Amino acid sequence: MKTLEYGFPDSEFELRTTRAQTLMAKLGIDALLLTTEPEVRYFSGFHTLFWQSPTRPWFIYVPNIGKPIAVIPEIGAELMRTTWLSDIRTWSAPNPTDDGISLLVDLVKSNLGGKGNIGLPMGHETHMRMPLLDFSELKAKLPEINFTDATSVIRELRMIKSELEIQKITHICQIASKTFAQADELFFAGQPLQESFRTFKLACLSNGADDVPYLVGGAGAGGYRDVISPPTSTPLEVGDILMLDTGAVFDGYYCDFDRNFAIGFANDEAKIAHDVLWRATEAGQKAMIPGATCREVYESMQKVIREFDSSPNDVGRLGHGLGMQLTEWPSLAAFDDTVLQENMVMTLEPSLSYADGRLMVHEENLVIKDGRAHYLSSRASQELPIIK
Amino acid sequence: MKTLEYGFPDSEFELRTTRAQTLMAKLGIDALLLTTEPEVRYFSGFHTLFWQSPTRPWFIYVPNIGKPIAVIPEIGAELMRTTWLSDIRTWSAPNPTDDGISLLVDLVKSNLGGKGNIGLPMGHETHMRMPLLDFSELKAKLPEINFTDATSVIRELRMIKSELEIQKITHICQIASKTFAQADELFFAGQPLQESFRTFKLACLSNGADDVPYLVGGAGAGGYRDVISPPTSTPLEVGDILMLDTGAVFDGYYCDFDRNFAIGFANDEAKIAHDVLWRATEAGQKAMIPGATCREVYESMQKVIREFDSSPNDVGRLGHGLGMQLTEWPSLAAFDDTVLQENMVMTLEPSLSYADGRLMVHEENLVIKDGRAHYLSSRASQELPIIK
Repeated sequence: MKTLEYGFPDSEFELRTTRAQTLMAKLGIDALLLTTEPEVRYFSGFHTLFWQSPTRPWFIYVPNIGKPIAVIPEIGAELMRTTWLSDIRTWSAPNPTDDGISLLVDLVKSNLGGKGNIGLPMGHETHMRMPLLDFSELKAKLPEINFTDATSVIRELRMIKSELEIQKITHICQIASKTFAQADELFFAGQPLQESFRTFKLACLSNGADDVPYLVGGAGAGGYRDVISPPTSTPLEVGDILMLDTGAVFDGYYCDFDRNFAIGFANDEAKIAHDVLWRATEAGQKAMIPGATCREVYESMQKVIREFDSSPNDVGRLGHGLGMQLTEWPSLAAFDDTVLQENMVMTLEPSLSYADGRLMVHEENLVIKDGRAHYLSSRASQELPIIK
Repeated sequence: MKTLEYGFPDSEFELRTTRAQTLMAKLGIDALLLTTEPEVRYFSGFHTLFWQSPTRPWFIYVPNIGKPIAVIPEIGAELMRTTWLSDIRTWSAPNPTDDGISLLVDLVKSNLGGKGNIGLPMGHETHMRMPLLDFSELKAKLPEINFTDATSVIRELRMIKSELEIQKITHICQIASKTFAQADELFFAGQPLQESFRTFKLACLSNGADDVPYLVGGAGAGGYRDVISPPTSTPLEVGDILMLDTGAVFDGYYCDFDRNFAIGFANDEAKIAHDVLWRATEAGQKAMIPGATCREVYESMQKVIREFDSSPNDVGRLGHGLGMQLTEWPSLAAFDDTVLQENMVMTLEPSLSYADGRLMVHEENLVIKDGRAHYLSSRASQELPIIK
């Protein structure tokens, strides 16, 4: 598969920043303070697996005018200097007595005179990646700063993808689709589930994925009962339904979809469940147009699911945004009134329970373009595929 | 390579819990509230990649007597029921208006009558994985609860590994060692660095790693300049020094070490740098005995490094704890007075700069057993290996 160029031009980050500053101005937010990997990467392009280490905090400060400012451990300086940022302030980290706090205090004093509103994402689907005690100290040292919720700024920005972001997500969806299309060669009766997972991951990497940070699934006679477990050494058996759900990445962008397979043969209930979920996805795809709400898409899918399964939906939603993280805002759920817009990338993820507590999930990735939703993952077959 | 059994017996979790409760009693902490993946896994055995999704919060509540209690999204109930926990409380998540908060409030009221000290890790190397606004709401609904720092409880527990934990870390160190030993077949001049990384990852998975969540490195003529970057498409050239640093996992436990290789030939400066780091590691290994402090180990290594490089050390430390996370407490650093004990697993990670800003890093993994430090990674050769 032809690979895609890595990275973004500076113009991408300039646009993200000016869009953020427009939203900040509307809310009276004078600056953003960001602490998590996707937030830092979104505004800087800083891309490293070093975040796997919890030891050091990293900060991006977005003023209300001009470029974001990086306040980061010295170990990241060389890499940060390759990004579009020009104001990079570092300290020798880890330093338990002052892990960037005095640098942040100086920055806020010089940028805002120590007065004003600083936004942090504090709402649904967010967390702050710095020690709570450090945050308390920062607040104590900036008594005239009001730290306020800026979830809506980040949410509104990241829900709408750029052309280059869509290209990266499309590319990784194609890589994972190609890998699922090799299922007949990858999976077989007698194969321990751990080996099925390992084989899939190896194939996905060979097909061009940078990594497969998310791979869950299940298998069981006539259906599986859990969808988030790591695999066991239990071998696949004839009559099992196997599901793999993958979040592979290319250049920091995720796909997130699954496929179901019957090993040897499928019973009627599993076949019907698959058909229902496939048609629920079709209904979701048709409903997924600019101007519709997430709730409407959810309801269009639930209507099909209820033909077969009238139990309450405990999973909470039937799809979600997708991009720099495996799951992003918004949610296709009864509680979410977000209005769909052009250039949103979403998963449709209907699920149901059947046959005495077995589960089936089905997932596709789509982008909203030119007034309708297009599949980015190669559409699953309506009929449950059988691996002979 | 013979694989190892997955999981832990219940007795492992019982011991962890009673040890936590002993430490809590000393500090007057009535219960712990834990929110991050390693914390939840440490007390429950709950192991899933589903944490990749930032959407849903997960909670473990450790009372001062009895088993921990899980307060989790319904989607995790089936998996959590396979653990040793018996009190599992779930809600249909995501629910932006109440993502587990009322369940937590009810639990604290029934367990503590709504009064007392609840510990959360708030200190160095920690963060809280739940929305800040939800935490504010929790505090407002529990006005007679004092939320206090419990970093020392988690730190003291997790710094000392059990036999089974050491077995898992040993196993993944062996897998990564075997993979590095294949370097002559994996890497070659002309290979784009992205392919070197992909090839290494594939080999590591084939050798039995569950995953390779951390793989960074660098390559450059006579030496590399950055140690946390993702790879580019630039091909390896004769005269390059290549470094790969890997955090592979087995059953949720990490190795974390690197290897340096010269492509074709090595100049004298790179050879000397490698020899210095190798000897710094030897010095660290000798100093790493029960009763010594982290600072003493750090100083023993710095003394050797200063033979060759007298510049200040900006990386902040020369090694760290290792286990359920790529990096854990303590730090081999001037600021860390932690006293080493039996069954600590640590990395020794000396680094230096040379030849006009080039860097070299070298890392090994060790366990303290029977009064001295034993290598878990197959010891690197003293001489910089050359790939012909």
